[in-house]
Amino acid sequence: MIPLNSNLSQLQRSGIRRYTNLAKTVPGCIMLTIGEPDFDTPQAVKDAAQAALARNRTHYAPNQGVDGLRRAVAEAETARGMACTPEQVLITAGATGALFTALLGILNPGEEVVIPTPAFPLYESIVTVAGGRPVALDISRDGFRITEAALAGVLSPRTKAIILNSPNNPTGAVLDRASLDTVKRAVLGREIFVLCDNVYQGLSRGPVPDLSLDRELSDQILLCQSFSKPYAMTGWRVGYLIGPADVMARLLLLHAAEVAAIPTFLQDACVAALGTDPAPMAQVYERRREMVCRRLKQMGLPFPEPEGAFYVFPDISRFGIPDEEFCTRLITQGRVATVPGECFGCGGHIRISCACADEQLETGMDRLAAFLETL
Amino acid sequence: MIPLNSNLSQLQRSGIRRYTNLAKTVPGCIMLTIGEPDFDTPQAVKDAAQAALARNRTHYAPNQGVDGLRRAVAEAETARGMACTPEQVLITAGATGALFTALLGILNPGEEVVIPTPAFPLYESIVTVAGGRPVALDISRDGFRITEAALAGVLSPRTKAIILNSPNNPTGAVLDRASLDTVKRAVLGREIFVLCDNVYQGLSRGPVPDLSLDRELSDQILLCQSFSKPYAMTGWRVGYLIGPADVMARLLLLHAAEVAAIPTFLQDACVAALGTDPAPMAQVYERRREMVCRRLKQMGLPFPEPEGAFYVFPDISRFGIPDEEFCTRLITQGRVATVPGECFGCGGHIRISCACADEQLETGMDRLAAFLETL
Repeated sequence: MIPLNSNLSQLQRSGIRRYTNLAKTVPGCIMLTIGEPDFDTPQAVKDAAQAALARNRTHYAPNQGVDGLRRAVAEAETARGMACTPEQVLITAGATGALFTALLGILNPGEEVVIPTPAFPLYESIVTVAGGRPVALDISRDGFRITEAALAGVLSPRTKAIILNSPNNPTGAVLDRASLDTVKRAVLGREIFVLCDNVYQGLSRGPVPDLSLDRELSDQILLCQSFSKPYAMTGWRVGYLIGPADVMARLLLLHAAEVAAIPTFLQDACVAALGTDPAPMAQVYERRREMVCRRLKQMGLPFPEPEGAFYVFPDISRFGIPDEEFCTRLITQGRVATVPGECFGCGGHIRISCACADEQLETGMDRLAAFLETL
Repeated sequence: MIPLNSNLSQLQRSGIRRYTNLAKTVPGCIMLTIGEPDFDTPQAVKDAAQAALARNRTHYAPNQGVDGLRRAVAEAETARGMACTPEQVLITAGATGALFTALLGILNPGEEVVIPTPAFPLYESIVTVAGGRPVALDISRDGFRITEAALAGVLSPRTKAIILNSPNNPTGAVLDRASLDTVKRAVLGREIFVLCDNVYQGLSRGPVPDLSLDRELSDQILLCQSFSKPYAMTGWRVGYLIGPADVMARLLLLHAAEVAAIPTFLQDACVAALGTDPAPMAQVYERRREMVCRRLKQMGLPFPEPEGAFYVFPDISRFGIPDEEFCTRLITQGRVATVPGECFGCGGHIRISCACADEQLETGMDRLAAFLETL
């Protein structure tokens, strides 16, 4: 084989898919691995896509995104408290596309990105592809909070960005105000971006402390957002990136080279999505999270309190079994599939996804409890 | 502003858009700048998207692409003569996404990509973003053919790829068999990829000589293709990349980090597109190209013979006016918009796009003829 970009050699297939695939070989296995809403996209959004298709909105969209959607996004974000204009909004291929464009766009070789961990493994992959260096900031030992001492220990003259993902995948936990204040004090006025991956904010119990709303940091904030989770639109691949106008003018050129633009009639449908209420779906996830938390407490498994998203991240370290082995046995012997914490850079835990039907989730908890009895 | 990825500093806004925007300020100006079908997407394709949407095909697609589409693509390409399996097919965000993934995936800093020129400016942008070095191979002085001497003059130990785009944007010309044989002799068995950007093949008069069909080169071929041009689906952003299985296994991981996947129900619709016949649209473009060529001959403007795509690239050097000034005056005084050859790395020419209604194109030619009289 002709040698490829050497940065690619460190990329691995998603651990989440690996355990999902193993589970598929076990008949009747309950899947609590998938981080994707089990709901279908709301009818109003599908109708809007169909109407746009009928209007032949099948020609190139502007590189930056359809004007109407960028306006609607800027209005929604401004109403939420992040004052911005449509010129600052770039429509992307989901939050993945937003993160990729942001990180490839800002990183020079060897520059570092601080990733509070446990974390979604995509961050490490993208930083690696971009030639940067991912720097894990383990917050699992500090109660899933960012402390001044821990942060100081990972910052360096090469630090180019820190990624904040709150509510978090895989824990569902929210970074508290003190954690954000710590980050703000450390980066304010320095040449460090704060990448806010807010994809689970629409699925949170209440308002979430959020540095993207901080006006003093506005020259340093890059906000990644997606229609996938709150509107059950994972398969549509639409999200957005918002940042300082001068930065976005450069990232637009990069985005044009990556994908040209996002499908036109899908963007029209996203305007309709912004007009629907994600609260009913968020309430279902909250109810399921509460059920799972109740059951885990009965089993005596500790976990960080989830306040959003559809994950719970119990600590299974007291069984003395490495989490990858634990998950493999839980699939093959217990017939319920979860993802090892190691896939998120945090061993000794498993990630349970609540993105499945209630009865499945109940049965999954029954089986987990029965499996624990055998250990 | 916080400094960004330094590779981005060389990116420029598309020259095509710049002249289109200037033309929009001139009332009644005829637009012959746009490289996009004026047709709407065929109804059968729109119907298939709607049916997939109704079936709630709104969840994540596999990173690599929907199985059915990859199978249909592999069958179509194998029937065309490029034997391949569905495992070698990666569904991408149009040909742009295919080119981006291919080039970012293969290039290490400083590695060179040979670009026969005139060329679509996206190639240079992507190579630059990837940290590579674009190396123009001027073929305009050799009758738009690749000669052994010219190719030898640009190859180096750092050459990692050569891009072949035939039929070509901006000329519509096809690389002849001798040109391809020259390329094959130069690269066979060396660690050099041949990137075939075949997006205009579906809009060509007849079969086009094509190195992607060459079995001896199969370990070195990366094929970029798109649904955009033959099926009038520019706004759908679906294309594909095909290459050696071991290379594609790595590029899949890169693609997953870029966009995760391509929208699910759009991929279902692309299966329907492969079942429609692009010939009627191709015939319309051919008729228009012939009309433009006839008119240009009457005006005494030489041009490379277009055999595909929807472009004609006349030589305007005898007027002694730089092509950018020529196009600006043609817009403001002649009220017809074309793109300077300089935007494609080849001054002294203008690109005329036939992707507009027949009467518009006729009027555009009338105005061009009248403008030439004033020079």
